[in-house]
Amino acid sequence: MSTAQQFDRLTVVLVSTRNPLNIGAAARAMSNFGFLRLRVVTPYDAAFREARSAVGASAVLKNAEECASVAEAVADCTLVVGTTAAGHRDLLEPLQELGDAAPLIQNEMQSGRVALLFGSEKRGLTSKEMSHCHCLLRIPTREEHLSMNLGQAVAVCLYEIARQGREPHVDMERVEARATAAEVERMSGVLLETLNASGYVNHPAPVDVEERVRRLLLRMEMRSADTETWLGMLRQILWKLRAGVK
Amino acid sequence: MSTAQQFDRLTVVLVSTRNPLNIGAAARAMSNFGFLRLRVVTPYDAAFREARSAVGASAVLKNAEECASVAEAVADCTLVVGTTAAGHRDLLEPLQELGDAAPLIQNEMQSGRVALLFGSEKRGLTSKEMSHCHCLLRIPTREEHLSMNLGQAVAVCLYEIARQGREPHVDMERVEARATAAEVERMSGVLLETLNASGYVNHPAPVDVEERVRRLLLRMEMRSADTETWLGMLRQILWKLRAGVK
Repeated sequence: MSTAQQFDRLTVVLVSTRNPLNIGAAARAMSNFGFLRLRVVTPYDAAFREARSAVGASAVLKNAEECASVAEAVADCTLVVGTTAAGHRDLLEPLQELGDAAPLIQNEMQSGRVALLFGSEKRGLTSKEMSHCHCLLRIPTREEHLSMNLGQAVAVCLYEIARQGREPHVDMERVEARATAAEVERMSGVLLETLNASGYVNHPAPVDVEERVRRLLLRMEMRSADTETWLGMLRQILWKLRAGVK
Repeated sequence: MSTAQQFDRLTVVLVSTRNPLNIGAAARAMSNFGFLRLRVVTPYDAAFREARSAVGASAVLKNAEECASVAEAVADCTLVVGTTAAGHRDLLEPLQELGDAAPLIQNEMQSGRVALLFGSEKRGLTSKEMSHCHCLLRIPTREEHLSMNLGQAVAVCLYEIARQGREPHVDMERVEARATAAEVERMSGVLLETLNASGYVNHPAPVDVEERVRRLLLRMEMRSADTETWLGMLRQILWKLRAGVK
C-alpha cells in the first residue's frame, strides 16, 4: 500500500467548529501532510468551503463531507480517536500522548479506517462526543497553557502521524477486522432495547445510559464478526422478552 | 538545568511578518510548548502586540523584542537555524528535515543559545536572511503542497523540539485492572444461562457453544469493572426472561 493510499484511510472530523477560518487552516495542514479526507459535523458557518485560510487546499474543502452527527461522521471507521487538551476534566476514555497514539493510528491505517476528531474551539469535544471514541489523545502542551489553536493542533497531530508513518513499520499481530463504529452503534442500540425490555433501564433510556453503554462496548474493541454474534444473541433475547412479557 | 531554563535558550525570530494574527498565533504555540522568547524583525504591522490570536499568550507578545535586522535578532545566539519550505530554490546552507535538526537544536540548548527563524508569509526567508543561518530545516510536507501556514509551522517545529527534549516518558495510559479469568468465566456462565432462557441455545448448552462464548468474551479483553456491569445487566435480563415465560 502506498503512503497516499494509507493516508486516505484517515479522516479528520471537525465537530461544531465556530470559525470557518479554522476549518480552512485545518484543510491546509491536511493537504501539507497528505491527508485529504475531511468531514465536518454541524459547522457554525455553512460557507466554510470558501475559507481563504485554506491556501492551496481548496480541493480538501470542496470535497469535505458534511455530517449531521458524530455517529454519522465516524460510522465507517474502525478506530475513533478524539483529541483533548485534557485540563482537569474527568475523562472516561483512555488517554494517550500524541507520540504514543500515533503508532496505534498508523497501525490501524494498515487495514482499517481511522477517524481523528477535533471539538469546537471553545469547549473541545463534549462528553457525549467523546463517548464515540475508542481513545483520546493529547498534544503534550505545558500545564500552564494547555489549549491549542485548532488549526495548529491539527497540524501537529498530522505531522506526528505522518512522521511515524515514514519510519520503518513494525507489523503487528492484528489479523481480524475490527468493528466499525456503525456496527458498534447497532449493537449498542439493540443492547439498549434489550435492557429496556428487561426493566434494567427505563424507556427511553436516559442520555447518560446511552453514553455509558456506548463506552462499555467501545472499550471491548470488538471484532466485526463478533458484533454479528452479539447481535444475533441480543435479538433472540429481545424477541423472547417481548414474546413472554405481555 | 530544568526544562524551562533550557527552553529559555531558544528564541523564535519572525522576520518581516505581514499579518499580525500570525505573530499572535506563533506566540500562542510558543506558550503552549514552553518557549517564551520571541523577537520580531521589521513586522509589517507595528500593532502586532494586540493580536487577538495570541489566546493565553499575551505575555509572550508583550515581552517580544523588536529588532531592526536579522543580524541584531540573532546576535547573542550560538546556533542560528532558518526554516524553509525548500521548493526548488538553490539553497546555500545545509538543509535538514525537522526530525533530524531537532536533536542538534536540543543539544545546543544545553550550553548555548539557539535562534529559530521564520520568514515572511509570502516568500519565506530571503537568501540574505538565510545567510545568517548555520543551517536550514524543513518540515517534511508533501511535494505537491510544500508551503505551510506560519503559525502552524511554528507549532510543528516547537512540538518536535520539545518532544525530543522531554525526559524519558512516563506512560499516561490509564492502568485499569483487566478481568480475571474467573470473572470472565462468571460472565460466560450467566450469558449462557440467558441464551438458554431466550431459546438461542439448548439447555444444557453444547460444549462447543460454551467454548465459543468463552472465546468471544476473552477476545474482548475486558476490564474487571466492566464484567460487573455486564453481570448486572445479564442477571436482570435473565430474571425478566424467567418471570415472563412460564
